[in-house]
Amino acid sequence: MGRIGILKTPHGKVKTPALMPVIHPGKQTIDVKKYGADIVITNAYIIYKNEELKEKALQDGVHSLINFDGPIVTDSGSFQLSEYGDIDITNREVIEFQEKIGTDIGTSLDIPTPPYVKRERAEKELEITLERAKEALDARENLMLNSVVQGSTFPDLRAKCAEIIGKMDFEVYPIGAVVPLLENYRYRDVVDIVMASVANLPPSRPRHLMGAGHPMVFALAVAMGCDLFDSAAYILYAQDDRLMMPTGTYKLQNLSEMPCSCEVCNKYTPDDLRSMKKDQRMKLIAQHNLNISFAEIRTIRQAIIDGNLLELVEQRCRAHPYLLDALRNLKKYTQLMEEYDPEYKNSAFFYSGPESLNRPEILRHQSRLKRLPQKDRVLLLPVFKKPYSKNIKNLLTSFGREKEYDLEKLGNFYKIEGLKTGNNQVMGESLQVTVVDIPFGVIPLEIDEVYPLAQNEAPSFLDEDSKKMVKGKINEYIKNFSEVIISEDVVKKFDLDFDLENFNINDLRLDFNDKEKIKYIADYQFGKGAGKALFYGDIQIVKSRKTGKIRHVYDGEDLIATLRASDGIFVLSISGAKRLHKFLEYPKNRVVVNSDAEPFAREGKSIFAKFVIDIDINIRANEEVLIVNENDDLLAFGKSILNAREIKDFKIGQAVKTRKGGK
Amino acid sequence: MGRIGILKTPHGKVKTPALMPVIHPGKQTIDVKKYGADIVITNAYIIYKNEELKEKALQDGVHSLINFDGPIVTDSGSFQLSEYGDIDITNREVIEFQEKIGTDIGTSLDIPTPPYVKRERAEKELEITLERAKEALDARENLMLNSVVQGSTFPDLRAKCAEIIGKMDFEVYPIGAVVPLLENYRYRDVVDIVMASVANLPPSRPRHLMGAGHPMVFALAVAMGCDLFDSAAYILYAQDDRLMMPTGTYKLQNLSEMPCSCEVCNKYTPDDLRSMKKDQRMKLIAQHNLNISFAEIRTIRQAIIDGNLLELVEQRCRAHPYLLDALRNLKKYTQLMEEYDPEYKNSAFFYSGPESLNRPEILRHQSRLKRLPQKDRVLLLPVFKKPYSKNIKNLLTSFGREKEYDLEKLGNFYKIEGLKTGNNQVMGESLQVTVVDIPFGVIPLEIDEVYPLAQNEAPSFLDEDSKKMVKGKINEYIKNFSEVIISEDVVKKFDLDFDLENFNINDLRLDFNDKEKIKYIADYQFGKGAGKALFYGDIQIVKSRKTGKIRHVYDGEDLIATLRASDGIFVLSISGAKRLHKFLEYPKNRVVVNSDAEPFAREGKSIFAKFVIDIDINIRANEEVLIVNENDDLLAFGKSILNAREIKDFKIGQAVKTRKGGK
Repeated sequence: MGRIGILKTPHGKVKTPALMPVIHPGKQTIDVKKYGADIVITNAYIIYKNEELKEKALQDGVHSLINFDGPIVTDSGSFQLSEYGDIDITNREVIEFQEKIGTDIGTSLDIPTPPYVKRERAEKELEITLERAKEALDARENLMLNSVVQGSTFPDLRAKCAEIIGKMDFEVYPIGAVVPLLENYRYRDVVDIVMASVANLPPSRPRHLMGAGHPMVFALAVAMGCDLFDSAAYILYAQDDRLMMPTGTYKLQNLSEMPCSCEVCNKYTPDDLRSMKKDQRMKLIAQHNLNISFAEIRTIRQAIIDGNLLELVEQRCRAHPYLLDALRNLKKYTQLMEEYDPEYKNSAFFYSGPESLNRPEILRHQSRLKRLPQKDRVLLLPVFKKPYSKNIKNLLTSFGREKEYDLEKLGNFYKIEGLKTGNNQVMGESLQVTVVDIPFGVIPLEIDEVYPLAQNEAPSFLDEDSKKMVKGKINEYIKNFSEVIISEDVVKKFDLDFDLENFNINDLRLDFNDKEKIKYIADYQFGKGAGKALFYGDIQIVKSRKTGKIRHVYDGEDLIATLRASDGIFVLSISGAKRLHKFLEYPKNRVVVNSDAEPFAREGKSIFAKFVIDIDINIRANEEVLIVNENDDLLAFGKSILNAREIKDFKIGQAVKTRKGGK
Repeated sequence: MGRIGILKTPHGKVKTPALMPVIHPGKQTIDVKKYGADIVITNAYIIYKNEELKEKALQDGVHSLINFDGPIVTDSGSFQLSEYGDIDITNREVIEFQEKIGTDIGTSLDIPTPPYVKRERAEKELEITLERAKEALDARENLMLNSVVQGSTFPDLRAKCAEIIGKMDFEVYPIGAVVPLLENYRYRDVVDIVMASVANLPPSRPRHLMGAGHPMVFALAVAMGCDLFDSAAYILYAQDDRLMMPTGTYKLQNLSEMPCSCEVCNKYTPDDLRSMKKDQRMKLIAQHNLNISFAEIRTIRQAIIDGNLLELVEQRCRAHPYLLDALRNLKKYTQLMEEYDPEYKNSAFFYSGPESLNRPEILRHQSRLKRLPQKDRVLLLPVFKKPYSKNIKNLLTSFGREKEYDLEKLGNFYKIEGLKTGNNQVMGESLQVTVVDIPFGVIPLEIDEVYPLAQNEAPSFLDEDSKKMVKGKINEYIKNFSEVIISEDVVKKFDLDFDLENFNINDLRLDFNDKEKIKYIADYQFGKGAGKALFYGDIQIVKSRKTGKIRHVYDGEDLIATLRASDGIFVLSISGAKRLHKFLEYPKNRVVVNSDAEPFAREGKSIFAKFVIDIDINIRANEEVLIVNENDDLLAFGKSILNAREIKDFKIGQAVKTRKGGK
């Protein structure tokens, strides 16, 4: 759910995920811009309460006051409200004040209900927060506005709040009152709160995890859909002689080495710092804290681009057992995360532990397996070198006996007894050949090169969670076959408990049929039956001379689709798109554009989100989609850049990169 | 097995673990000292082969040649031998040449047998390597010498080689020919090779993992006992536009953000670098590579000091599934690692996944459990807040009913049927109260505050491996009791399959007896029966007024031992040491010093390793030990600084920090 975004403000654009250093309006000494800050946050209430600051802010503006010419967010005094119980400014006043001093993004005076309060209190305070949100909209003129999600530790209240304010016209949605949870390492509860909030907020607006300033939690928070962070921590920790790292916190007093590559840590030793005057030391540690925090934001952005943010999260969550607990808690939300997970990525899937079993890709494979044709019998092979289908062919034909395979090289095989009453005759029935591997489980050989079934790596020593998961998947998968032939290696590896009968594997004849393979891939990619609908007629398969891989599929001279080498999925041609359009029922795979966009779509121009009037809600990012008008006439086809929910919600930016005009 | 060491050379001392950048004698452009290099490595054969370099080196010395005034290691041409098959210098010549040019640490011309060769070849080449090692010793005058462990991928050959050369008088032991394995991500095999080598090398000499220059592997290698690394990678990767990180490698062409906090990554964007001339870009990337590599070395050193190196390793090994595989392969070596694992550490034990179950602390707890007194019945409580013993007392007495406890607050309880024929009468028999927790399993409440049983954290969501392990431990533990009362929560959490009978927990009377507790702790710490031997007479227990914890144990007015608050173990007094000495049979817990050291020991001076003539081989670092003379007269007592194997092998440095003179 992590994303790279652009937040537009009156003082310029900001790339997200972004970290906003907290600037004290009266006593800032560090030039945060130098360390990578493109946007900052300061406190309007503190300015309001100090006559001198207030006067200067009203006269010269807040940008002049804190000497920062980029976007400035101001907080409203809610924090002070939560700390001291009462403040002397009204919601309307604070909105008007923020507008007057030229804040880019202001905040209403919400009630930051602490964690673990009684439900009654949380509900009551949420009512006030919602009223004030409404009032804030009424009070503002041009000011961009935060509206904070509250609801204490009640996920349903957070969800309700998010849904209500999400429908109102706010520019940014902070998630509030999580600081006490973060301070007490209750990361597990933070996950429930953030996911309840984000699931109900509009995808087109940035979310700010308020008060989360430690780089330990950035990656996890971004993976849950948070875009903005604020950090007073860089200076507060420095005051306390503490160095932040994405892997935790070091106290200077315990350091004998500087555990970081930043300029400060490279230049000074712990003794150097300890022997300095407090002020100088504090400034240097604050610089380290900023260096490492911004580096973590950059690392996260790069991981989003590389498509391996969850791998970064899985690394970072080893920093503390309670972060690992939070990561494990994410399991509940895999289905939601799958919706936001792009279908195809640049990077391989790296298994990093039992938590990797909860990644969206695995859930997706399991559900897509059901799209494939059903055969009578199944053969479960042990794992061997990827790509399996290529290597098994090499293995089988290495003796030059094209029709008599020597499968014994893969070890002993058994027939499983006592399943569906099957026909015991071995020859002549359709056979599904599969490989069993970690973490994707059962992989039919026809689709073994589709991303990420070939593009993944896992350790050879298995953990118990993956054994248990794959065991479950095998049991589920084989239920539908009348005969199951299984490798001894698979039986042992996954502690399978079946009645087994010896089976002479050389009695089997394996048939690798390219025409069947392309249909499997199409079914897996587009849905049951898509293969038949795409690939009929005088099917000609063109392979790469160099790699021997399937490249193009033609009907006679007519190109239907191209199989992309990098991820093994089909990219359609015009004819392919037409066939798919004819086969798939509306709104399957459709992005429906209005009449304004129709001519552009026909010309092959990219589709902008604002022209989309309907969409198949199941579309993910990086999927091959059909672009149609309201009459379901096929206009063009292309690759989705966002998922369906995002395309529906965004009013700016591209939705689909069109491949070619339809006609 | 990671350690902080000092390597003394003619050109100064070097703190290890250390990274030695490879310096090309002809064309070095980067001043590696600036980035943290205290020691470098260059190639004597390249100097030898180039007339100009050779002449300059012979005349002015190698330090002048490469313009580095710290320690210089030279390699011998073995690499060239392995690459090109033949070189034109003899072993004796290369040793003499290295001595002449003033190398600090030279290398003999060993045969770097590649991985996966036939055993015959590995054996044959190993013979040559061993002969050349012997010859090198003969050829050198004052030159310090590397002797490289070879043996291809045969752990037994590596072990044999290490044992033979380990007994000879070399200063440094490199482990050779692992580069092809590292290049192919065969980290799992690297573990077997390194562990076979290190287990048989003398602890007092540094080990150099030759050719391991990527920071991804530093932490793992150090945890296996490697002290030195060389890196040509910093420049080779830079030439190829690749940025190294402890989490992997980034190609500049794929970067849109600089994912690091170093000066280079802070100052430039990927676009900046891409638009530079090759030379300038290469230099900057090399600087980044050095920055990050030295930062990783510093991070590792700090982790050793903090006692959490294995936690760092567990984080780092998520960078690639094959590193995770290597980490899982370490399981085989837990027993060896336990020997080198200090008994008590500054930091808590953080659980980071199934691999944490293989940490030495868990093995140690399991074996020490057997030291405790055996009772008739056992109660297995579910986990609650730590420290358990304190909190259960709070729980039980919270109603002010000191004698009638309300254990129902901990849920339902059952009696397990069908174990050893037990007496069914509930009252009047001795009851062992325990808590069952991840990852330490069954924890008798008497020892729950001993490190790390209280000083550990684990996630609340359990993985299958920890469930399985704890289930096994419970089954093993309860076998010796005639009656087992178990919490429903424990039964469910760990999928226990017993026949259960309802049990009214309020029938039980829990007895928390401090006199018993101190004996348990002493047994757990020093061995079966130690508690009785230490704590007899007029036992007086003094508690802290502030914390209520046990602080001192007296016999009348005579202090026996003090329970250290930080880790819950006993520190002895003179009387305690005498009692323990009387009870424990020689050589248990003894460090035996020669007569030269006896007067110093009696005065309470620290014991240096060179004076130790015998030692209990089971002594670990940070253990309370007895210092005796050859007649087993107690001279003093103190805390071991190294483990027994190290103390036996080291000829310099402290072995035991004496607490107080004996008499």
